[in-house]
Amino acid sequence: MASKTPVGFIGLGNMGNPMAKNLMKHGYPLIIYDVFPDACKEFQDAGEQVVSCPADVAEKADRIITMLPTSINAIEAYSGANGILKKVKKGSLLIDSSTIDPAVSKELAKEVEKMGAVFMDAPVSGGVGAARSRNLTFMVGGVEDEFAAAQELLGCMGSNVVYCGAVGTGQAAKICNNMLLAISMIGTAEAMNLGIRLGLDPKLLAKILNMSSGRCWSSDTYNPVPGVMDGVPSANNYQGGFGATLMAKDLGLAQDSATNTKSPILLGSLAHQIYRMMCAKGYSKKDFSSVFQFLREEETF
Amino acid sequence: MASKTPVGFIGLGNMGNPMAKNLMKHGYPLIIYDVFPDACKEFQDAGEQVVSCPADVAEKADRIITMLPTSINAIEAYSGANGILKKVKKGSLLIDSSTIDPAVSKELAKEVEKMGAVFMDAPVSGGVGAARSRNLTFMVGGVEDEFAAAQELLGCMGSNVVYCGAVGTGQAAKICNNMLLAISMIGTAEAMNLGIRLGLDPKLLAKILNMSSGRCWSSDTYNPVPGVMDGVPSANNYQGGFGATLMAKDLGLAQDSATNTKSPILLGSLAHQIYRMMCAKGYSKKDFSSVFQFLREEETF
Amino acid sequence: MASKTPVGFIGLGNMGNPMAKNLMKHGYPLIIYDVFPDACKEFQDAGEQVVSCPADVAEKADRIITMLPTSINAIEAYSGANGILKKVKKGSLLIDSSTIDPAVSKELAKEVEKMGAVFMDAPVSGGVGAARSRNLTFMVGGVEDEFAAAQELLGCMGSNVVYCGAVGTGQAAKICNNMLLAISMIGTAEAMNLGIRLGLDPKLLAKILNMSSGRCWSSDTYNPVPGVMDGVPSANNYQGGFGATLMAKDLGLAQDSATNTKSPILLGSLAHQIYRMMCAKGYSKKDFSSVFQFLREEETF
Amino acid sequence: MASKTPVGFIGLGNMGNPMAKNLMKHGYPLIIYDVFPDACKEFQDAGEQVVSCPADVAEKADRIITMLPTSINAIEAYSGANGILKKVKKGSLLIDSSTIDPAVSKELAKEVEKMGAVFMDAPVSGGVGAARSRNLTFMVGGVEDEFAAAQELLGCMGSNVVYCGAVGTGQAAKICNNMLLAISMIGTAEAMNLGIRLGLDPKLLAKILNMSSGRCWSSDTYNPVPGVMDGVPSANNYQGGFGATLMAKDLGLAQDSATNTKSPILLGSLAHQIYRMMCAKGYSKKDFSSVFQFLREEETF
Repeated sequence: MASKTPVGFIGLGNMGNPMAKNLMKHGYPLIIYDVFPDACKEFQDAGEQVVSCPADVAEKADRIITMLPTSINAIEAYSGANGILKKVKKGSLLIDSSTIDPAVSKELAKEVEKMGAVFMDAPVSGGVGAARSRNLTFMVGGVEDEFAAAQELLGCMGSNVVYCGAVGTGQAAKICNNMLLAISMIGTAEAMNLGIRLGLDPKLLAKILNMSSGRCWSSDTYNPVPGVMDGVPSANNYQGGFGATLMAKDLGLAQDSATNTKSPILLGSLAHQIYRMMCAKGYSKKDFSSVFQFLREEETF
Repeated sequence: MASKTPVGFIGLGNMGNPMAKNLMKHGYPLIIYDVFPDACKEFQDAGEQVVSCPADVAEKADRIITMLPTSINAIEAYSGANGILKKVKKGSLLIDSSTIDPAVSKELAKEVEKMGAVFMDAPVSGGVGAARSRNLTFMVGGVEDEFAAAQELLGCMGSNVVYCGAVGTGQAAKICNNMLLAISMIGTAEAMNLGIRLGLDPKLLAKILNMSSGRCWSSDTYNPVPGVMDGVPSANNYQGGFGATLMAKDLGLAQDSATNTKSPILLGSLAHQIYRMMCAKGYSKKDFSSVFQFLREEETF
Repeated sequence: MASKTPVGFIGLGNMGNPMAKNLMKHGYPLIIYDVFPDACKEFQDAGEQVVSCPADVAEKADRIITMLPTSINAIEAYSGANGILKKVKKGSLLIDSSTIDPAVSKELAKEVEKMGAVFMDAPVSGGVGAARSRNLTFMVGGVEDEFAAAQELLGCMGSNVVYCGAVGTGQAAKICNNMLLAISMIGTAEAMNLGIRLGLDPKLLAKILNMSSGRCWSSDTYNPVPGVMDGVPSANNYQGGFGATLMAKDLGLAQDSATNTKSPILLGSLAHQIYRMMCAKGYSKKDFSSVFQFLREEETF
Repeated sequence: MASKTPVGFIGLGNMGNPMAKNLMKHGYPLIIYDVFPDACKEFQDAGEQVVSCPADVAEKADRIITMLPTSINAIEAYSGANGILKKVKKGSLLIDSSTIDPAVSKELAKEVEKMGAVFMDAPVSGGVGAARSRNLTFMVGGVEDEFAAAQELLGCMGSNVVYCGAVGTGQAAKICNNMLLAISMIGTAEAMNLGIRLGLDPKLLAKILNMSSGRCWSSDTYNPVPGVMDGVPSANNYQGGFGATLMAKDLGLAQDSATNTKSPILLGSLAHQIYRMMCAKGYSKKDFSSVFQFLREEETF
């Protein structure tokens, strides 16, 4: 194990922290950077090397994982004044696990390629819990020949590593899945709410939907109506899970991609606006299934 | 078999015809009525009794199935000048398998009850093929004590008979399922179309969605993108299946029910309008999964 | 004046009360009925004749105004067990000023015609204030030959009486106007809110819109942003004006009419759902321009 | 006149061409650049100086107008390898009349400011006809002290020059106006179409709306229904005017701005999607009022 070469890791937030730890568990020495020094402390204490900018990570490691919150952060980490590209070595493998606009991924890939290195986008599906338990799914876009190399690292952090195609398709797959998820979830909430008002028992309605053509992950695995299922956020006042504000962010990316490609997304756009409104009305930190609660409030006179 | 008492059947259209035949196969003599005399001919030739109005059906049979296209037709058949209620016998069991507004079902149930008879709503899920092969699902609303009696007849025409609760809840269950189905289908079409434009292979994208949280019946069982699955309408130029015009009708009922109960259905309303537009643009008779085709037409300059 | 023949008036609510008083001021003796006896007291004290059901109104007056809250109330008043049609005299003129589904107006007109009488729909635009000050606008549908007779009465209660065409077109005109009004108001609120967040001064933005192609009644006469105009509900915490719940009702009628005629109303449907949600979130009694307030709440983290 | 100092002009397309000519008419010598050399020929023939990149324009002129189709083109013209910023002189006044994302305008302004020059955004309202006849409206954002200098040039090309506030507010004003315009136009089309299907005469309905609260520029100045008004695109098969594809572009900018500022735009988003769909169905080059035609196609069975 000791002979493994170091891996760079940039972005040690809620998700990056447990992901980096899983790399450590697999014996990879880490070269660490985060804009917030506090985020690095734990790793420094564990003996990993902390540096002061992304360029320095690139100087010391030829395989780097980045895990950042927005497109702007990713652009800064790669192309900024002290970014990776300032000191990246030829032949390096740069894997971006941030969820960002696929058009930005493509742009970064071009710049990386100019430096003789390789860029792959590999956004994750699954939250903090899945990151801890090494149950993330990675959706990977990039040159197919390099996929095996990426898989070696990503497989230490997730149980599922899927090759999606050219650079940007990892992001595309994630965005499309989450847009459909948001639509199905709101649809499930609307259908359950309407059914309840029409006199149906929620558990029975869920059972009927789940054996019929309305069946979806939001109805059969993550039902948004309290009392229908155990062990899901709706059973726990919508605590935990995937926050409405994160869903709003992903829908914003879907909207951007759709605008860029001139793809009509009528329900996707409206879903985006609904999560936008929920964030404005106090639901930001609640699980995204709380759209049921948002819709069900009774009309009062 | 010969000792079975006759069953009335009103409405021998595309669905009613094979349903009635399945009752015949189970040995029930039929008392038949349809506003179009031609629809009765086949049954007359087979020796069943044809009468000239719903009232006459009610005179001769104390168990009646009605299968009609709209709320207005159902009201006419029950409460019209020559309707069932004019001659219904006390203790009769009247089962309406039409898909109509649950508020109308409740209204009819009240009138039937006044005459000392029993009304149940039992709309079906499944199309003409399922009607022929006795594979319909019936969603039944009404007094629970009478469910066994209804099940005896409905079980001859379908493989699945589900008790949903008080009168109107059969309609409610069907409407809610179909609204969620429409939303999921449009969402699947939007997500698949966006993904394809972002460079993803359709089969691969479908596979990723189906192992992720975007999974739904429309993505894993009835995928709307040609080439992704065999044996579904999208593999056959959207022939057969469940026509866009029928989906538009069911969404109209969902909208009515939502307006009556003041339930917000943001995506449901928009789905209704999308199917409305599709009907105006030549998709009426195509399967409802043709929304993918409707959305994917390329922008031309 | 004393020689004027009596006019029947059914429905003495918030709107009917001042309308009936304006008829009295013009010297018309009234025959009064309301389901709530208290609503009639004031008129009884003033010497008008109060009767106990709509049929009795029809027995004593051959010109009747009805002003009722919903389609169901109107059907009851005309076709109910003690309804107008039970005792209506041949040649009577029945004017319904309720805002209801135009399909119901047409249905009532048919039944009235069978009795040899005349029915016109004449919904009003303008609220309680306009009713008091005789500033209502009446939109009238019915046989053109009878318009002059209707105008004689309606002109006592409003400043503007517009002939719209066949029976039901009065309702149609009102519904279409209010749907466009709702859409423009929400659009104005969205545009003002977006502009403010982008750094524009609200007054300046309103001025620019009003001299450009975005100009509409909601931006130039009834601006929803506090501080932009005086003397409008937005200047008074959205008190008074036209309540969100009334707008939701009219949009429900627009939706019903659109579904019946298979007319696509994408923005109209969504506007309906937005007012539905506002009613569920405490805005029922606020003026409908409070949609600005509903939208502008800031996202909090 | 001969003593006037030269003005740079970058982007001589459909709009830039007549705008530049109006500057010439006012006696300003021009320094010209366009990525398409053909676009410059006419000006070269007229004796104006054509150079080979934006940087060269900046070298020879200290007042520059840019008129480009997209944000990307504007970024290239200012910050590209041969962009204005490479050779801009201190104290120069750079006015961008492109319609682009206000966030990009702000970004460009920052870079320009670093070079000691001044940037203003000044998008136009009005089409090619207004550009020719010097009837454009300019909405100007930037430091107020420089507004007079901008006005001197812009007043040669338009009849109306409005100061909107800090950099980016010119774009913001335009985007908000056009979003409200799109919403009102679709709303007018929906209301007129619904009214016609309910039996109203289109001219009469327009008249009623225009004297009521539904009144808007789209109903009273630019009515989308053929036969209602003369001299508008709807009277000429939707030729001329403001193309659906341009409206889709502006709504894309509104969507981007709303996403960035987390402003809910429910109707604005849906309007964007509707124009997106129209572009996909053959309406790209038709005037944006053709949404009436898009909606009114009859359902066929």
